[in-house]
Amino acid sequence: MSALQSLKQHFQKIDNFNHLSSICNWDAAAMMPSGGNEARSRAMADLSVHIHQLKTAPQLEEWFGKAAQQTLSVQETAELREMKRTWQMANVLPVSLIEAKSLAGSKCEHAWRSQRVNNDWQGFAKNWQEVVTLSQQEAQIRAEATGLSPYDAMLDIYEPGTNSHTLSQTFDSIKSWLPSLIDEVVEKQSHQSIIQSSGTFATAKQKALGLQVMELLQFDFSHGRLDESVHPFCGGVASDVRITTRYNEQEFMQSLMGIVHETGHARYEQGLPVHLAGTPSGEARSMGIHESQSLFFEMQLGRSQAFINHLSRLATQQFTDHAPALFAPDNLIKLYTQVKKDFIRVDADELTYPAHVILRFEIERDLINGNISYKDVPELWDNKMQSYLGLSTAGNYKNGCMQDIHWTDGSFGYFPSYTLGAMNAAQFMAAMKQTVNVDETIRSGDLTPIFNWLSEKIWSKGSLLSTDELVKQATGETLNPLHFQEHLRSRYL
Amino acid sequence: MSALQSLKQHFQKIDNFNHLSSICNWDAAAMMPSGGNEARSRAMADLSVHIHQLKTAPQLEEWFGKAAQQTLSVQETAELREMKRTWQMANVLPVSLIEAKSLAGSKCEHAWRSQRVNNDWQGFAKNWQEVVTLSQQEAQIRAEATGLSPYDAMLDIYEPGTNSHTLSQTFDSIKSWLPSLIDEVVEKQSHQSIIQSSGTFATAKQKALGLQVMELLQFDFSHGRLDESVHPFCGGVASDVRITTRYNEQEFMQSLMGIVHETGHARYEQGLPVHLAGTPSGEARSMGIHESQSLFFEMQLGRSQAFINHLSRLATQQFTDHAPALFAPDNLIKLYTQVKKDFIRVDADELTYPAHVILRFEIERDLINGNISYKDVPELWDNKMQSYLGLSTAGNYKNGCMQDIHWTDGSFGYFPSYTLGAMNAAQFMAAMKQTVNVDETIRSGDLTPIFNWLSEKIWSKGSLLSTDELVKQATGETLNPLHFQEHLRSRYL
Repeated sequence: MSALQSLKQHFQKIDNFNHLSSICNWDAAAMMPSGGNEARSRAMADLSVHIHQLKTAPQLEEWFGKAAQQTLSVQETAELREMKRTWQMANVLPVSLIEAKSLAGSKCEHAWRSQRVNNDWQGFAKNWQEVVTLSQQEAQIRAEATGLSPYDAMLDIYEPGTNSHTLSQTFDSIKSWLPSLIDEVVEKQSHQSIIQSSGTFATAKQKALGLQVMELLQFDFSHGRLDESVHPFCGGVASDVRITTRYNEQEFMQSLMGIVHETGHARYEQGLPVHLAGTPSGEARSMGIHESQSLFFEMQLGRSQAFINHLSRLATQQFTDHAPALFAPDNLIKLYTQVKKDFIRVDADELTYPAHVILRFEIERDLINGNISYKDVPELWDNKMQSYLGLSTAGNYKNGCMQDIHWTDGSFGYFPSYTLGAMNAAQFMAAMKQTVNVDETIRSGDLTPIFNWLSEKIWSKGSLLSTDELVKQATGETLNPLHFQEHLRSRYL
Repeated sequence: MSALQSLKQHFQKIDNFNHLSSICNWDAAAMMPSGGNEARSRAMADLSVHIHQLKTAPQLEEWFGKAAQQTLSVQETAELREMKRTWQMANVLPVSLIEAKSLAGSKCEHAWRSQRVNNDWQGFAKNWQEVVTLSQQEAQIRAEATGLSPYDAMLDIYEPGTNSHTLSQTFDSIKSWLPSLIDEVVEKQSHQSIIQSSGTFATAKQKALGLQVMELLQFDFSHGRLDESVHPFCGGVASDVRITTRYNEQEFMQSLMGIVHETGHARYEQGLPVHLAGTPSGEARSMGIHESQSLFFEMQLGRSQAFINHLSRLATQQFTDHAPALFAPDNLIKLYTQVKKDFIRVDADELTYPAHVILRFEIERDLINGNISYKDVPELWDNKMQSYLGLSTAGNYKNGCMQDIHWTDGSFGYFPSYTLGAMNAAQFMAAMKQTVNVDETIRSGDLTPIFNWLSEKIWSKGSLLSTDELVKQATGETLNPLHFQEHLRSRYL
């Protein structure tokens, strides 16, 4: 057996244990009763240790050395590159730092749940200081191993190949037009009349509607399911994708569009190359590309006039005890494109969302690079919120810098993926429209040409190409934020 | 750390991986879409290999040696005994035989699914011959390791401490009165009038009814769930027990009593000693004791007049679109105690079930001990069916010796557990009635005293005692089939 073959066999084994981890994580969120948590946590901890041992197995170094001497095809070269990346990621940090950060992160996150409610910045800062320090140490070690700057080394975990220099330029360009665009749109929308959602929407009907929309989006139910969890997510494995939603009987819109979003993630997973299943090159390219698919479904498809027409028809059929005016296409599209300057990222609309992300990017970049202190964060947050959205968070920590879970356990470098996803989604749509009559296709009810495009250009590529190369082959150019700007202006002005 | 401590820590790790295995097996039966099967099978195979490696880890031999020199408490002695049993079970067979049997068993079982439908004994026998040969080899190796006869060594997998000599005597005694009792009851019941179930029973209502009955049986929903699967079972782990049922909208009785049965298994698991969780001594004592709890719930509690009164009330409330006469206590109890001589074990009633088990026991005992050939099985089956139930299976293989899955993959030694369970359940009830007013307790709707008795005498003991000792401490004597006879006569005559 060649060294590459040995590696592939070993990574297949890692994939098999990751499979069990994914299914049991889904179970914990969607199925497990509360009393099952303690034993499950113990079992999952042992599984993590086992997976880490497999990723750091001593024989891997020799195999990687020998494989580098083999003559490899283009595909094999990519396979080797991605396995090596996984291996290096697992080996770069000393176990003592992993454990210390995990401990500090758990402690900080756990306390944060009540501290946030109590707006207790002082209490939070006491725990968070250590998380930041350990994350800076982590970034330093990763930087030395990769030759990147500390923050870029953290970015690299989620977005291989992306760097904060380019990202800063991109975000600066967005900042140059976004605040005024938001003002313009808010002013424009202040004159429109909307019928707001009222009454109750039975969970069973919302679920039936969600399943119909998943059918329209060609979710493959022989390779996946829809269930419920407190925090909606897309989990499971590529051959068995588990998406979840949360139903609120006071309104139907959030869960419905949430399902569209998760279905985007799911179809990417379901469309990954089967012949590469089980090795890292067969996995999704990056968090930003994953998010580009969910946002393509949610923002590009889901909020288009043609798609809203389908939602209108299906919702009217489902919620027969409501006045149909609420579901009229014109009203539904107004509801789904309302813009509001507000404090909370997770509730933000398509237009204000990038402002929330850019703010976080700028702060975490400077924090991890050691240019600011954790103590500076509340004031910087307030300044930037005033500047981007005209809102002050002075003294309002719970709706300011304490609102997200990401930083509590030291997940620095993740936030940019959201807006990278939004920008890529807009660029994919612009490129797709050159060969596919997208609106007509959606109207027809058979969206196959759209999914064929995504499958051919994105899903089937797995991680064979770099992100830049993937985007370039799909759209003719690397990431260009003008498509995103164009999309927003055309939808909201 | 003492050797015993090292062992306990190691077995906790085994338990953690068993936990993941149980949850993923439940998922495969209750949740997984068909397309998930291939990747799941691969993942589960790797998990099995890992668990086997843990059970056969080289350091265990030294630890068991050292632990044998330690001064141990009574509890520690039991803990060590059960860990050693698990270790020996895992080590006794050569890997080549495990693999060969697994391969032959999978092949035979897979082909059996269509061969049974086609009544194809010749085709089946061709595969089955090898399964029998390999099982005989397995039994021989187990016999040499344990000093038992070959068949007793197979029995020992499921029923440690039970031997076929005693079991033959017990079953002979049952055979001396069962066939005539069946005749008598069938004759008696031929004169009674019953309103048969008709109409449809919506799945949602059946489920609601099942959940109500689980509440009555004090199933702990913070440590378990009810779901659906093709073959109902009790899975999951002690802190998170997953029971399943199958709904048939043409009738409600089978699923309902199936839920009562699985709830019995579940409460045993939920009641296992928490302070021993994670080591074999904290697990259920044996298959027969497990079945004694499900049959205690299904047969002793579930078919009692007082319990049927509850079912009658709850079913009447639930199925308001049916004439209530069907659910009248008198009618319901007649339906739930109908006796019929028939071919199929899984559909058999309480009274004829032991005949099906004894027949299988006698055949598999003689087969594994090498006293008969696999070719003799159809004729023996026919003879015994005629003798015990007055039915001929000559040429009717699919409803004769080809009806069960157990033998297709070589699971010889399992069948007796069913009737051991039924006998133990009757004996437990007889003992319980000496201190608990069972009928009055059931009538009151608060069954706590019944469950306290089971918890104290059975559930909380885990595997600390041998089966004989467990039954003796609980009831004052070891297994005595007279209680079972007494129970059947009092219910059916």
